[in-house]
Amino acid sequence: MVQAVRHTSVNSDPESLDDSFGLHPAFVDEVDDALVNEDKDRVRKLVSDLHPADLADLLEHLEPKQCRSLVATLKDQFNPEVLPELDEAVRDVVMREMGFEDFASALTQLDSDEAVYIAGLVDPSEREAVFDKLPAPDRMQIEASLEYGEDTAGRLIQRELVAVPDYWTVGETIDYLRAATSLPDEFYVVFVVDPRHRPVGLVELNKLVRSGRPVLMRDIVNPDMELISPDMDREDVAYLFRQRDLVTAPVVEGSGRLIGQITIDDIVDVIEEEAEEDIFKLAGVGDSNLYSAVLEIVRSRMTWLVLNMITAVGASMVIGWFQPTIEKLVALAVLMPIVASMGGNAGAQTLTVAVRSLATKDLDSSNAARIIGKEMLAGLINGLLFAVIAAVVAYIWFEDLGLGLVIGAAMIINLLVAGLAGITIPIALDKLNIDPATSSAVFLTTLTDVVGFFTFLALAAYFLL
Amino acid sequence: MVQAVRHTSVNSDPESLDDSFGLHPAFVDEVDDALVNEDKDRVRKLVSDLHPADLADLLEHLEPKQCRSLVATLKDQFNPEVLPELDEAVRDVVMREMGFEDFASALTQLDSDEAVYIAGLVDPSEREAVFDKLPAPDRMQIEASLEYGEDTAGRLIQRELVAVPDYWTVGETIDYLRAATSLPDEFYVVFVVDPRHRPVGLVELNKLVRSGRPVLMRDIVNPDMELISPDMDREDVAYLFRQRDLVTAPVVEGSGRLIGQITIDDIVDVIEEEAEEDIFKLAGVGDSNLYSAVLEIVRSRMTWLVLNMITAVGASMVIGWFQPTIEKLVALAVLMPIVASMGGNAGAQTLTVAVRSLATKDLDSSNAARIIGKEMLAGLINGLLFAVIAAVVAYIWFEDLGLGLVIGAAMIINLLVAGLAGITIPIALDKLNIDPATSSAVFLTTLTDVVGFFTFLALAAYFLL
Repeated sequence: MVQAVRHTSVNSDPESLDDSFGLHPAFVDEVDDALVNEDKDRVRKLVSDLHPADLADLLEHLEPKQCRSLVATLKDQFNPEVLPELDEAVRDVVMREMGFEDFASALTQLDSDEAVYIAGLVDPSEREAVFDKLPAPDRMQIEASLEYGEDTAGRLIQRELVAVPDYWTVGETIDYLRAATSLPDEFYVVFVVDPRHRPVGLVELNKLVRSGRPVLMRDIVNPDMELISPDMDREDVAYLFRQRDLVTAPVVEGSGRLIGQITIDDIVDVIEEEAEEDIFKLAGVGDSNLYSAVLEIVRSRMTWLVLNMITAVGASMVIGWFQPTIEKLVALAVLMPIVASMGGNAGAQTLTVAVRSLATKDLDSSNAARIIGKEMLAGLINGLLFAVIAAVVAYIWFEDLGLGLVIGAAMIINLLVAGLAGITIPIALDKLNIDPATSSAVFLTTLTDVVGFFTFLALAAYFLL
Repeated sequence: MVQAVRHTSVNSDPESLDDSFGLHPAFVDEVDDALVNEDKDRVRKLVSDLHPADLADLLEHLEPKQCRSLVATLKDQFNPEVLPELDEAVRDVVMREMGFEDFASALTQLDSDEAVYIAGLVDPSEREAVFDKLPAPDRMQIEASLEYGEDTAGRLIQRELVAVPDYWTVGETIDYLRAATSLPDEFYVVFVVDPRHRPVGLVELNKLVRSGRPVLMRDIVNPDMELISPDMDREDVAYLFRQRDLVTAPVVEGSGRLIGQITIDDIVDVIEEEAEEDIFKLAGVGDSNLYSAVLEIVRSRMTWLVLNMITAVGASMVIGWFQPTIEKLVALAVLMPIVASMGGNAGAQTLTVAVRSLATKDLDSSNAARIIGKEMLAGLINGLLFAVIAAVVAYIWFEDLGLGLVIGAAMIINLLVAGLAGITIPIALDKLNIDPATSSAVFLTTLTDVVGFFTFLALAAYFLL
């Protein structure tokens, strides 16, 4: 039996694909083999010691048929902690194999934030069937959290927390913790609340254990906490956690009452997901991933390709105006993609930096003017440099000085436009409350294509013919 | 005086740029104004209550001249905790204004992981000057950590930690913590070590406070910890933290001795930085950012643009072979960018998903074949769909059925190649231990441009002329 998870000797093998962390491919193959042969005891033995996160990875790596077979084999031994770690598409497969009753029962065994996260991703058509199997209190709590939008702090709330009155001593608090039976699995702070259950501050556990028993909680409380409202955007919550190096933050409702906490483990996932969302949106990938079905992949990428088709036809129309020019000087058709392509790439560089800077709040109206100026200057300098290169290439290739000068001039104009558009388009979209990551790139490439083709062909028509 | 930082009423204002979290632009303007007027008392009063992270943001938002002036105004009141929060380019400005002596003294007041992080980013030409001002023990510790590569766990080590022998009781541990004077500011676990100072496990603080004083540490120790070696890639460390929902992990040297810990706050930064690195590499942006000087921006983006220039000229050469064909049928010049552009975009979608999946370890040799098959199928389906659209557009526009069929055929071939290349190029680069994020996109667009132009023009030359 091979080692399931690789942890040691990073970079010891030149084949990094097989050498990185995570599940060992040979282990996946072994489980796959046992499943195909319906050797249930071997399957159970192989996966018995796996960490829930690794079992989730295993389920993701198996083909859907084998994935279902593994769930069926484990049945009662299936650890609910696996569910939050699964990719959404794979979790749907697992849920159907488990049946709604077992799935609902698994949800009740998770922390409230995890149960809400999972329930929120169940397809609405199946959600009712799952909710019907939930005990009433769990169902009400989950439904209350689902009232908050998908990208809000409300979805991250963990209802389980420790809160004590401010007149308690450290000793009383410790005694309470030792006696309590329904504490969260993990917690890093004790909240101190007033008589109306409004947080007055928090005491980090390390401060609690370092203080003598007679000390009053109100004397060691750290009032410098960040209150989270459940309808806050989760990106803003993540920003606060990063900015303040937080591990826990209290969530309060309108009246100021403490209703739950948000912990760093959820925020780590938010940061990863939001960054990935930006990457995918910039490339127009939509919300599919490796585990999605082929038709789902096609559908999710379609919008972007249709938009790109429209803009490409638009750019072609610009070329169409100059058909007589190209007929007379076919070198123009050969060289024109260079101008458009350089504009598109230079613009995409600026755009990417701008979109990220808006997401990380490094770019706002207090420094926008200065940054726009910088990017235009950078575009101009790049334009001048590549104008010279393009002019030399064109001159050597077609032995035509005029053609060289025209392509150089078009390059300067297009890279200047690319720099300006790359920074101003995302800022403008953000001002209009449109996510700049989603839509910037379409506008930008349309512009650099149209400007690139037009300036090059128009200058050629005017000066060379 | 306006409120420095916006925390309440998210999304209450349609102008999201000014409404999001972070520093209030009006506050930045007010500080700027006070600095310009050299009203030092007002400056000090304005910034006196700022959190170090917000003061860092403020320094980043000011023009370099005002930034220096603010540092000079604060002088002795400058909080060292601001330094780790600063962008590298801005920190250089601050360092020069502080002078090497004050800067070195600030480093000694930080946690060791932060001091190492900052020292590692100081330009090597100035590093010696800073190190000369450091007390010998600090200098040695920082230099030891800097021996580890920039992207390794070694750079994240916090040397300050709490470790107790396994025969101690909970009571003894708590008494030790109450009496100890040089504990880290924040910690979440107590490490339990054997006589050779090798970790045998850890006790989460919440478990410590919940256990009775007579309980032995060895009886509540959690042996299920992840040992980090200092030369581990920091991306792998971040993966472990996410996968296992860790908050702290012990760092051990070759002999197994505990030499430090890594905590979640550093990992949050690593996750954000690594995701951003992938975004920037995919767009060929290099390591500059908004705060870099213009020439630094130009330089960092140059490599990518030069590469793109070379590939664009290569694609033009392919067009060049078909000059006689284009001369006879100028509609080809009008339509050819559509085929190339669709291939480039569809390929970039697949590429982006593949690069991220490799980074998050969702894609490896155990599922590569299946994923490649899926992406090719998705490419084929998209190819068929857009072949029909492009054929109809071409037929209506130029009233030429042959032209429509040729562009349709070229579209199918190019989108199939795009899907195949989009997934196999990153996998191949990863196998060769080349970061797929850095170099994939160049190969891909070269391929889709060349294939797009070639198939379209060659099919046209063969069938239409």
